[in-house]
Amino acid sequence: MKIAIMGYGTIGSGVAAVLEKNRDSIARKTGEPVELKYVLDLREFPGDPIEKKLVHDVDVIMNDPEVGIVVETMGGVEPACTFVKKALSAGKSVTTSNKALVAKKGTELLALAKENHVSFLFEASVGGGIPIIRPLNQCLTADEIMEITGILNGTTNYILTKMDKEGESLETVLKDAQEKGYAEKDPTADIEGYDACRKIAILSSLAYGSQVDFEDIYTEGITKITSEDFKYARELGMSIKLLATSRRAGGRFCALVAPMLVGEDHPLYAVNGVFNGILVEGNMADKLMFYGRGAGSLPTASAVVSDVIEMAKNPGETLLTSWSSEKLPLADRGSWTGRYFVRMEGSREEKRVLLGEIFGDVSYVEIPGLKEFGFVTPVMTEAEYDQKAAQAGGVIHMLRIAR
Amino acid sequence: MKIAIMGYGTIGSGVAAVLEKNRDSIARKTGEPVELKYVLDLREFPGDPIEKKLVHDVDVIMNDPEVGIVVETMGGVEPACTFVKKALSAGKSVTTSNKALVAKKGTELLALAKENHVSFLFEASVGGGIPIIRPLNQCLTADEIMEITGILNGTTNYILTKMDKEGESLETVLKDAQEKGYAEKDPTADIEGYDACRKIAILSSLAYGSQVDFEDIYTEGITKITSEDFKYARELGMSIKLLATSRRAGGRFCALVAPMLVGEDHPLYAVNGVFNGILVEGNMADKLMFYGRGAGSLPTASAVVSDVIEMAKNPGETLLTSWSSEKLPLADRGSWTGRYFVRMEGSREEKRVLLGEIFGDVSYVEIPGLKEFGFVTPVMTEAEYDQKAAQAGGVIHMLRIAR
Repeated sequence: MKIAIMGYGTIGSGVAAVLEKNRDSIARKTGEPVELKYVLDLREFPGDPIEKKLVHDVDVIMNDPEVGIVVETMGGVEPACTFVKKALSAGKSVTTSNKALVAKKGTELLALAKENHVSFLFEASVGGGIPIIRPLNQCLTADEIMEITGILNGTTNYILTKMDKEGESLETVLKDAQEKGYAEKDPTADIEGYDACRKIAILSSLAYGSQVDFEDIYTEGITKITSEDFKYARELGMSIKLLATSRRAGGRFCALVAPMLVGEDHPLYAVNGVFNGILVEGNMADKLMFYGRGAGSLPTASAVVSDVIEMAKNPGETLLTSWSSEKLPLADRGSWTGRYFVRMEGSREEKRVLLGEIFGDVSYVEIPGLKEFGFVTPVMTEAEYDQKAAQAGGVIHMLRIAR
Repeated sequence: MKIAIMGYGTIGSGVAAVLEKNRDSIARKTGEPVELKYVLDLREFPGDPIEKKLVHDVDVIMNDPEVGIVVETMGGVEPACTFVKKALSAGKSVTTSNKALVAKKGTELLALAKENHVSFLFEASVGGGIPIIRPLNQCLTADEIMEITGILNGTTNYILTKMDKEGESLETVLKDAQEKGYAEKDPTADIEGYDACRKIAILSSLAYGSQVDFEDIYTEGITKITSEDFKYARELGMSIKLLATSRRAGGRFCALVAPMLVGEDHPLYAVNGVFNGILVEGNMADKLMFYGRGAGSLPTASAVVSDVIEMAKNPGETLLTSWSSEKLPLADRGSWTGRYFVRMEGSREEKRVLLGEIFGDVSYVEIPGLKEFGFVTPVMTEAEYDQKAAQAGGVIHMLRIAR
């Protein structure tokens, strides 16, 4: 089996390294050696082991009938999408680590793969090295998935963990993360939640069997989280995590990305630093969690290569077909149900009667030295919360509480 | 697709319930309805929905060519093994939840399935509802597995969690667990670690690709764990878990089942109560954890039915073949490497010089009111530890520390 890698960056070079390092065991599991024939990149890599495999013209790969599998690790929607379509149309199976591509064009590319009797796989697009796409698609098949909640972005989890443990501000920790290479120079996609949003859209589409558009998912980043929020969290025995979540409630589906308070007993509480964790609730299997390195060259490449092996073992088959192009309508943010932690101006004493009347039975949290107070509401929809919060006035910050 | 269930106990009746409850989504994923045709059991179930499907003679199932898949949920090696062999020889695929059968006869049954162009699957035999067999076999294929460490027995984890949180003795907690149905009347297989031992043998065979005999695995149960051990554990910021573990070290493999100290930063630390957690370390993906309900009727049945769906979708194929019958030689307990926590008679002051000479740089732990003290050794092999402990004398209890 001969393969080509398109994009020799962090992940693409990891794929070459995994193929080299585990050459023998991969050949044994595949039933034949997996040979890297081409690497496509605009740049030159003098002295690199792949130097002689480097091509700059994608058509060299497309026109070579020996290449049965193409690995797309370029990132971004274009030109990745055009190249992937070319490959699928040329009868080559494709695996990608590119969540932007899968979230935007997944349905279309899955259909094109099916038409051409090849596969389009994307295990590495969510959760890096954590097996989650294949478990959802091949293991949890006896269940109806009721909920998926994940820490899907290692950069923000690193930042929040450090803010929690060291009491520092977002700005300070972000700068440190950028210096360590855990955050990009332009961190927008991570800290605004866009990356996590694309990933939960992919997982939800797979889990519920219909297309979830990432544009429809209400998304809040971590930019408003302060060290005061962490003081309250500690007082509550909780931590703050950026969660990407979707759930089935009645006949409807609801999805959102937001920083939430997570209690000590929650399986995601202990997912710290650059690690990712994905909690899946089936109606039969109950709660399951998948945990591991959500990024990094070799872990992500490990997931890509597992797709390569699966495709090499099943030539002429379309391995992933369960994601229909029918659009899944999402209920709006107002139908989200849960408890809310609220920071409010003034003192508990002066607001107690009013809040009792508006919110019912709340529990209070106070931090010595702050001219404000916090409270946790009973369970209600977010529409109810919005209305009550407007009525009460003086809200400084609201955080949802993960159930 | 018509199937039969052999054994209508906790798991067998769960399988019938899952097939009924998720009938539509299972039919959609399989591509055809999955119909339960027979249930084999010695007992009668008057008034039960499966009453009319009940048979007492296994040959009714074996001789019916309409039955393509047989579910074995009887437990125990015999007569389960004889029945499974009959089914495979009759060209029927089999899935089982029976770890005793898989640990004892897995290699033989896998070979028999291959011979007959059918499948023998056993997702539910380890970790209940947690997908672990298929992820090891189909997802982590790009990796060489370096280590598997699991909390694989819910009964002992429930007992240890309760001893930890409530400071009670093993006897008290065991009685409570028996009353709640979490422990059997005869709890030997659980508390002596035999159940966990069979499960780690299965996982290790799959992960390393060669037969690991459970009889070769050094196994210690939890019967010697006292509330004093938990006092030390708390002092160390750790908990005590019954871990079943195997690792690749150099060219050799080492496996053991024993209660171990697990630190707060360890992914298995937060796996409490009846939950199971399985940590897998790949040489590329690094550390991964799979977490969920390791027992219970519906979660375990969910895993069984996921096997049924996979087999129904792939008729005439042998889905699991990677486990060779070649025996994997295990290094003995003496080659295990790690740190050890030791409780010792006497006082730290009187033993300090001696222990420094024997063990080198140890760190001490003391619990007010106890006429003994504890210390943690540097990293060494267990053979070295044994020799040094004999030299020092006065050891009350030793616990390995999970790395």
